[in-house]
Amino acid sequence: MHTTAADDATPIFARDKRIWFHHCDPAGIVFYPQYLLLMNELLQEWFETGLRTDYAGLFAERRLGIPTVRLECDFHAPSRLGDTVRFALSVPRIGTSSFHLRFSCTGPDPSDVRVQIKAVLVCMSLDEHRPVPIPDDIRDAMQEWLAPAADATT
Amino acid sequence: MHTTAADDATPIFARDKRIWFHHCDPAGIVFYPQYLLLMNELLQEWFETGLRTDYAGLFAERRLGIPTVRLECDFHAPSRLGDTVRFALSVPRIGTSSFHLRFSCTGPDPSDVRVQIKAVLVCMSLDEHRPVPIPDDIRDAMQEWLAPAADATT
Amino acid sequence: MHTTAADDATPIFARDKRIWFHHCDPAGIVFYPQYLLLMNELLQEWFETGLRTDYAGLFAERRLGIPTVRLECDFHAPSRLGDTVRFALSVPRIGTSSFHLRFSCTGPDPSDVRVQIKAVLVCMSLDEHRPVPIPDDIRDAMQEWLAPAADATT
Amino acid sequence: MHTTAADDATPIFARDKRIWFHHCDPAGIVFYPQYLLLMNELLQEWFETGLRTDYAGLFAERRLGIPTVRLECDFHAPSRLGDTVRFALSVPRIGTSSFHLRFSCTGPDPSDVRVQIKAVLVCMSLDEHRPVPIPDDIRDAMQEWLAPAADATT
Repeated sequence: MHTTAADDATPIFARDKRIWFHHCDPAGIVFYPQYLLLMNELLQEWFETGLRTDYAGLFAERRLGIPTVRLECDFHAPSRLGDTVRFALSVPRIGTSSFHLRFSCTGPDPSDVRVQIKAVLVCMSLDEHRPVPIPDDIRDAMQEWLAPAADATT
Repeated sequence: MHTTAADDATPIFARDKRIWFHHCDPAGIVFYPQYLLLMNELLQEWFETGLRTDYAGLFAERRLGIPTVRLECDFHAPSRLGDTVRFALSVPRIGTSSFHLRFSCTGPDPSDVRVQIKAVLVCMSLDEHRPVPIPDDIRDAMQEWLAPAADATT
Repeated sequence: MHTTAADDATPIFARDKRIWFHHCDPAGIVFYPQYLLLMNELLQEWFETGLRTDYAGLFAERRLGIPTVRLECDFHAPSRLGDTVRFALSVPRIGTSSFHLRFSCTGPDPSDVRVQIKAVLVCMSLDEHRPVPIPDDIRDAMQEWLAPAADATT
Repeated sequence: MHTTAADDATPIFARDKRIWFHHCDPAGIVFYPQYLLLMNELLQEWFETGLRTDYAGLFAERRLGIPTVRLECDFHAPSRLGDTVRFALSVPRIGTSSFHLRFSCTGPDPSDVRVQIKAVLVCMSLDEHRPVPIPDDIRDAMQEWLAPAADATT
């Protein structure tokens, strides 16, 4: 069974963000690739605050990157210039080198779901250009966020 | 059965594009949301050249938008600063208001697949903020690109 | 004499911002057009908080845009992934339709000046595509931010 | 006396570019930082075609960057979705480590000037983080583009 971000028992990392002028297209709504930049901001905030990991140091000192290898995005409703939206992240699965994340963007009312994203990220050695196991300190911190009923088939 | 862009009988709209500095991240490779901007460029080129439709006029005069409502992306291999890559588009399905597109980005060797994307787009009235049928002239032009063995379950 | 943002008597509107992954180029430093996006964010925050004006409403309801017509930028030192930088804005001049802004981006130490920007913006009617006087309510609010010794030659 | 790009004797490197959806803001016109990305594309095309230099190799192998340290931009008229515009570059000055460039963006009619930019770029060692002399091969190639009456005060 899939654990969703709506489950009470699933840890959620969330931040409110504003929709600025440069996110919007000629129709006055967020141009969808901009959601991915905002989601990537949330990922970095989660690494720093949620995982207590120096994201910039991960890159510069530990020479690890965490590219996104798979994305599934559903764009349900538009966001507009000036909106305050909530970006949220949960962790349905942690593998050896990869981990799965669920993102959502909702409006002021939590039932007003704008975007839902499932992402798979992989821990990569920047020097060797190949996947490497998620370092233990990061894995341990991620476990605190793992959805309780998460399964390996997500 | 799924028709893939590799089928000889499937019409493919393709353009070569360069990877520029501003597409690249601190690892020197394309940051994935940039692929979506490049794919969107290809979509506009297809509307103009492939569908003989004035894309800007679609928006400004006919008041139609074609937002992406669903995306499935697989990022197989990185592209680097200076690469010339081929972006290609095929059309597995045309619905009433929506249509499905397949995009790929490949390196100089066609077997060097960098990115594969399945997208669903919807024709929307910008004034009424709701889906509307794809206009007949655009639908007729799209039919010329429809994959021959395409099925409705794609 | 020029009033600078360093003068004690000059009102300054400032916000701290993070440098995220998508701001950075293959050298791991902020790619300069990204500073302009961040400066534009600060402009919107100033309109909302500093000028108590609904920026989105300015656009959608009052049909006013405030395009930048002139920029002078000096990039003194790089900012890196993970940096917290301070973006600050001051107002050396308010004209009839146009107004001048000074922006700076500094590191944790205020003497660590990364970027300095002088910008001229113009209040435009989005429907008539021509400059119009700055509305009185916005002009009145702007006056509170005007640098005391500002002169018309800035 | 300043040599301008309009002088018949001044070598000009130019490329036509399309204004795409993702360049445009909620007013349907190019959001000004996007011009800087397009100008940066032209810079790379000039390095490759005009200077016969491998731009990506400059970065990856020779470990040289060429950051912009100063910009002066005048935005005269808007460009719209679908426009074909001409981006042009000329070289008023070549220093030891730095060089000056003039960019313009014009509409279909060359007198329809949309944007004018003066930029100063510096050749930097990416490893030592300091300015270094422009390599001889690049300097020699640049000389072919130098405006004949250029002076050092530009």
